[in-house]
Amino acid sequence: MMKSDTQNASALSRRSFLKSIGGSSVGLALGGGLGLAACTPKSSTQNFSGDYSAMAQQNYPFYGAHQAGIVTPAQRAIYFLVLDLHTQDIEEIKAVFKQWTESAAKLTRGENIQPYGDNPFVPPVDTGEADGLGAYGLTLTFGVSPAFLQKLGLSAHAPSEFVDLPLFPRDQIKPEFSGGDICIQSCADDPQTAFHAVRQLVRQARSSVTMKWSQSGFNAFDHSQHTPRNLFGFKDGTANQETLKNADQHVWVNTPNWLAGGSYLVVRKIQTHLETWDRTSLKGQEETFGRIRHSGAPMGAQAEFDHADIQSKDANGNPVIPDNSHMGLAKKTGLQILRRSFSFSSGIDLTTGQFDAGLLFISFQKSPAQFIALQSAFGRMDRMNEYITHTGSGLFACFGGVQEGAYIGQALLENQRTG
Amino acid sequence: MMKSDTQNASALSRRSFLKSIGGSSVGLALGGGLGLAACTPKSSTQNFSGDYSAMAQQNYPFYGAHQAGIVTPAQRAIYFLVLDLHTQDIEEIKAVFKQWTESAAKLTRGENIQPYGDNPFVPPVDTGEADGLGAYGLTLTFGVSPAFLQKLGLSAHAPSEFVDLPLFPRDQIKPEFSGGDICIQSCADDPQTAFHAVRQLVRQARSSVTMKWSQSGFNAFDHSQHTPRNLFGFKDGTANQETLKNADQHVWVNTPNWLAGGSYLVVRKIQTHLETWDRTSLKGQEETFGRIRHSGAPMGAQAEFDHADIQSKDANGNPVIPDNSHMGLAKKTGLQILRRSFSFSSGIDLTTGQFDAGLLFISFQKSPAQFIALQSAFGRMDRMNEYITHTGSGLFACFGGVQEGAYIGQALLENQRTG
Repeated sequence: MMKSDTQNASALSRRSFLKSIGGSSVGLALGGGLGLAACTPKSSTQNFSGDYSAMAQQNYPFYGAHQAGIVTPAQRAIYFLVLDLHTQDIEEIKAVFKQWTESAAKLTRGENIQPYGDNPFVPPVDTGEADGLGAYGLTLTFGVSPAFLQKLGLSAHAPSEFVDLPLFPRDQIKPEFSGGDICIQSCADDPQTAFHAVRQLVRQARSSVTMKWSQSGFNAFDHSQHTPRNLFGFKDGTANQETLKNADQHVWVNTPNWLAGGSYLVVRKIQTHLETWDRTSLKGQEETFGRIRHSGAPMGAQAEFDHADIQSKDANGNPVIPDNSHMGLAKKTGLQILRRSFSFSSGIDLTTGQFDAGLLFISFQKSPAQFIALQSAFGRMDRMNEYITHTGSGLFACFGGVQEGAYIGQALLENQRTG
Repeated sequence: MMKSDTQNASALSRRSFLKSIGGSSVGLALGGGLGLAACTPKSSTQNFSGDYSAMAQQNYPFYGAHQAGIVTPAQRAIYFLVLDLHTQDIEEIKAVFKQWTESAAKLTRGENIQPYGDNPFVPPVDTGEADGLGAYGLTLTFGVSPAFLQKLGLSAHAPSEFVDLPLFPRDQIKPEFSGGDICIQSCADDPQTAFHAVRQLVRQARSSVTMKWSQSGFNAFDHSQHTPRNLFGFKDGTANQETLKNADQHVWVNTPNWLAGGSYLVVRKIQTHLETWDRTSLKGQEETFGRIRHSGAPMGAQAEFDHADIQSKDANGNPVIPDNSHMGLAKKTGLQILRRSFSFSSGIDLTTGQFDAGLLFISFQKSPAQFIALQSAFGRMDRMNEYITHTGSGLFACFGGVQEGAYIGQALLENQRTG
């Protein structure tokens, strides 16, 4: 009754797995697809397949000088998960991070974490929803919070700037979307691939961690070089280009400690009040961002990546980029961060009857001070405040990259012996 | 200060819009993208762009014999919205449906609902988050509930089978995910495109409808001919192939009334208990579905689309496909429906600490009786019950297709005068 040989494949690649033992059924599937041909132009369906395949094949190596998922071009989907430690035994956590490192390397290659065994009387080693799928540019980025260091007796190794974010004016942070000990940022060009990866990692560490909060999100762009638009209709992340020209100055930690080559991740769950926004004039919207909506150009300039001149005045002597615009306030700090945000939208807010939608804001910076200064500059001034509410928050130190043979977080978890 | 000419474009196509007036900034964006080239293999980034573009260009005509989004191959993303009537004035609703028809035709072509005007002192006519994006195979499918007919005094036109679904054994339907008067199923290969379309339609009808509930979801497949896997790791929708061989028999209403050429849509929000599932043996999982996990084949068969023989017995005289398996119970009814489901996953369930994830089950059928008989057959027998909970429910009559010049629902909304 049980065809255990269907589980014999030792191929690690999810797609070659299917190709090798499921070849005949794939053939049938393609033939079967013709049943649908009447409903859709056949030629475009065929283009389609090619597309999915090429997008599916993209992959970014897990091992390297830095973790992937930071300066990597933003993908189309994110599953961001925050975990709590369920143990204070550092040896247990070392084992988890070792296993996560090996698993992440496989998952980002589009492989399952283990080949299937041939015993049908045990749960399958992989949950299977990515069988047959490519890597879709999957990146897995790991970070830990100040609480993580405290709980494991590693606080002596915390850089002085590594403390929880302060409460900012107008913050309405909910406990269920803040705090936590470990973050995993899983990004891919396919949401199921991103979720699958996180699910395997959690499953491997089930006895050592518990889940605190998560948020999925999306980005949209026809071409990966385009800056995606957020749900306010504005391009989001234009300033990254400038930040990345000198990532060492803005993004990467270069102090000689366990965080060398890493970066601080700030996450903010931001509810957007779309209906209020949609009733705002184009002029009001552009003065809120300080940018032209259709082009993404700074006000007073022509093209998206033109210099934003915050000193420039109009004929009446008023600033061309309003002082209280989001960009105007940000530019005045002179600080740069790397934005890597995703929109979300699902469900109706029962209290307002409006869309439950927003932005999962994520930024990477060399120091939390960059984000704190920027967010403090917005304060109560920012015209954006009318349209958004921050409801979730977190600060995580994302480790530097690792080479094959080492494991993520090793410098922190093993230095403590010599510290 | 305000560059109102940036809003002058009369081009309806979102991409040609950008191409015509944003050409120089697109050029800059491509140049700017080189700043990221060090982080990613350049050649794969370039393949990428091509992909997105081709996937983005897919479109399905809105006008036709049937509504699109039913037998159309399932896309990668859904935004499913249920609305309540905010008026009982049928003339107002006619106007809404006329406007929705025109808008849906444009949106599914990858156009905004209106070209931007040149007055910066009013809100932009489009919320803008799809500017620069293609159609991504967008389909918009409209349906109405029995309550819709009641509220508008059209109950005399309700087919006798068009009554709300009964409560099934083990149902735990929450009021906030059930009921409602109108549904809009928005599907596309990009979640932002799907959401954008719904947002414009709601905005156009703001004074006539309110939002009741919504759910977004996703499907994953490298090739559109592949059957996607659900979060249980099993292929979901294999039996559609058989259903579609005779859609007239299983899917399309052919009674000579306002629903001719339409179909009944059943939606069920189903929470999946992933952690319980993941602890179940492969044998237990396959006996629950009645299918082989990796291939999707019926138990006892070789390939996904092989015949499922529910009479077949093993050497001990036991059924090869267990009597209480999901497929075994379904097959015994002899009934077929068209499944068009999407997975969802975001957030952690605060009460259980587990993934908030599941399946937005959608099926289309010629009569609600098909779904009711199937769901009743599952009853308390179905082995699947241990792993799922139905928390949302709805039945909607999706109109037949319309030709250009007519509007969606016209046969219902205008027949009432002569009825």
